[in-house]
Amino acid sequence: MDPAPSDSDDTDRRLRERALRVTPGGMTGHLNAALLPGGYPQFFTDGDGCRVRDANGREYIDFMCSWGPVLLGHRHPEVEAAADTQRRLGDCLNGPTPRFVELAERLVDRIAHADWAMFQKNGTDATTLCLTIARAATGRRKVLVARGAYHGSAPWCTPSPAGVVAEDRVHLLPFRYNDVASVDAAAAAAGDDLAGVMVSPFRHDYGVDQELPDPAFARHLRRLCNSRGAVLMLDEVRTGFRLHDAGSWEPLGVRPDLAAWSKAIANGHALAAVTGTDSLRDAATRVFATGSFWAGGVAMAAALATIEVADRSGLVPHLERVGRRFRDGIAGQAASHGVAVRQSGPVQMPLMLFADDPGFEKGSFFCQHALARGVYLHPRHNVFLSLAHGEAEIDLALAATDEAFAAVAQRFGRG
Amino acid sequence: MDPAPSDSDDTDRRLRERALRVTPGGMTGHLNAALLPGGYPQFFTDGDGCRVRDANGREYIDFMCSWGPVLLGHRHPEVEAAADTQRRLGDCLNGPTPRFVELAERLVDRIAHADWAMFQKNGTDATTLCLTIARAATGRRKVLVARGAYHGSAPWCTPSPAGVVAEDRVHLLPFRYNDVASVDAAAAAAGDDLAGVMVSPFRHDYGVDQELPDPAFARHLRRLCNSRGAVLMLDEVRTGFRLHDAGSWEPLGVRPDLAAWSKAIANGHALAAVTGTDSLRDAATRVFATGSFWAGGVAMAAALATIEVADRSGLVPHLERVGRRFRDGIAGQAASHGVAVRQSGPVQMPLMLFADDPGFEKGSFFCQHALARGVYLHPRHNVFLSLAHGEAEIDLALAATDEAFAAVAQRFGRG
Repeated sequence: MDPAPSDSDDTDRRLRERALRVTPGGMTGHLNAALLPGGYPQFFTDGDGCRVRDANGREYIDFMCSWGPVLLGHRHPEVEAAADTQRRLGDCLNGPTPRFVELAERLVDRIAHADWAMFQKNGTDATTLCLTIARAATGRRKVLVARGAYHGSAPWCTPSPAGVVAEDRVHLLPFRYNDVASVDAAAAAAGDDLAGVMVSPFRHDYGVDQELPDPAFARHLRRLCNSRGAVLMLDEVRTGFRLHDAGSWEPLGVRPDLAAWSKAIANGHALAAVTGTDSLRDAATRVFATGSFWAGGVAMAAALATIEVADRSGLVPHLERVGRRFRDGIAGQAASHGVAVRQSGPVQMPLMLFADDPGFEKGSFFCQHALARGVYLHPRHNVFLSLAHGEAEIDLALAATDEAFAAVAQRFGRG
Repeated sequence: MDPAPSDSDDTDRRLRERALRVTPGGMTGHLNAALLPGGYPQFFTDGDGCRVRDANGREYIDFMCSWGPVLLGHRHPEVEAAADTQRRLGDCLNGPTPRFVELAERLVDRIAHADWAMFQKNGTDATTLCLTIARAATGRRKVLVARGAYHGSAPWCTPSPAGVVAEDRVHLLPFRYNDVASVDAAAAAAGDDLAGVMVSPFRHDYGVDQELPDPAFARHLRRLCNSRGAVLMLDEVRTGFRLHDAGSWEPLGVRPDLAAWSKAIANGHALAAVTGTDSLRDAATRVFATGSFWAGGVAMAAALATIEVADRSGLVPHLERVGRRFRDGIAGQAASHGVAVRQSGPVQMPLMLFADDPGFEKGSFFCQHALARGVYLHPRHNVFLSLAHGEAEIDLALAATDEAFAAVAQRFGRG
């Protein structure tokens, strides 16, 4: 079968034609369907639990979770009720609402390293603010970042060179994730100008196998920052709340000085946060970073409800359980069809790549077939589980992936 | 009377004490009440129309409009209904909703220079993206900006030096607003590396008299950019939709190549946009700037409804009418009390400063007295009118300012 849909009576296609006239390239950013295999829809109308529906009315079991923000399922009733209650009072006012204090208190209670919290809208706001606070605190400029890591889309961190000038990155020094020697080399190059290290809780670069952190690597970064008076910054934007309630490196016993949060913390409502330690409170006070909507109460009410539901429901163990079920199922199917795959990263936000697939042809073909059977995956980017993914939905998804594996084996052969 | 409230049974004070423990300095950014005179509340619970209520339950006629985002009044029923309708479907999904296309089309129809639109969350996202597109389009680096202008709070533009490195601004060249000779000098300094000029529709720097644009200045910037192959960027974040439906410089006959929009375009919902001309479409396609929540449908549905209401209700003439009534009333009161003031800027977003008041003591005293009488003004920043400000509310506010002027005359003397 051809997994691409018919173009007749295709609302998505008509929307794309209209979009091509009024937005550059027809769509911008990471949601551009041109980055996906043929047959993937561009436009969506609605979501509910672990399901989304595209503009052509096709429903999918959703494994992207809006690229991470959806943690408890789309339109979680308790989160939406909390947001509605706040909305009936007000969102963006002349000052913050009491939700600001309540949420900051909740994050300080919950996140192990956090003595304080600040709020923004984008993950990029939070990572940029971490850099700025680290520089303000130390009076130094150099920041170590892992080569290939994604920390946002501002000129200092966007993966595209268009419009970026050399000075945007002149004080960034690269290291290799999990490579202590490369960290030491970069730190040596920074000399007495080392402001800090920014790192993701695990390596989740686009299109390559994910890598869990070597505990020795994490501890080395902590010791380096301690010995150099530098700031350890953990970019929790993608991982936050999915791996550990108190911070993704808690199981390693490594606490950052600053952490950047966004995506899932308000279950899809636009919110970001920076948390930090007392040693950085003064620097954070001196930095002026702000936005018209950063204190909006609705997203904060949603975040409070998100945390409430996550804590009550045992979110992380649930994600581990259904993620494990999905990974084990995929592994069994791949073996039974004689197709070699690599699964990597935490089971809560897994990545599967095919062996001998440098151009992602197998991955794309697999995902197209899964999509045609109602399962929305991604061929190059990690996917995400949510609280709304139950065992039944995992099994439904696995029924589709089994057929997709069969199609891959037939087209590309075993191996 | 002492305009400062009693501290007994003071919810706002208790919230501040809690906030001081869990957020740096007790509050961050432009909403920090420490930047305001004593007696101003930090926390707000709700808003309705042109009124807001603080955490102590005191209600004010609101002349800050959440620092700009509230255009039609707090919680405008039609805007909130449109947002609710979209929210019951979904907000942040695996791709944009049809609202993305509808809003881009609406902006392209409405805004004179716009051939396309892109969406973000913060005004700073939009101004930063304008810079990046201008650099991508021209392959050049230098951007002229007016000294003292506020274009956002990223390191390249924040007013605070904390955490900013020299390289963040090395390619910015300053000019003086309305000063053609200073523009030419800056452009000469840019040499063959001139990417563009970023400018606000009028001068609205913090704490100084506002300046309307000299039409010759605006036309000079347009000619300069034309002759040098540079990009004219209009920062409409504060002005957008309040001065002119099709763009704030339409009355001058000057159209930008790029414009940055945010604040009021979705009546308080978090949204920003960049609009541009066809000549920049390719560069805008090549730039990778994105965010998890940028395609959220709820804020776009709110923006569509905001534009619908604005167009139907004759928003700009309304703002001019009530703004003129307020300005004339203030002028008459100041004269009758023998207090010298300077009113500046468009009547829709006016600034009043007192003569001989370099430390803003008179302005602060005036605003404290107005606040105690239920009118929320700002002593240094322009205020904002909205569609919800009717003549009756203006007259109520003027009754309060008349008493505030009397207090100023009594404390500081006439003149």
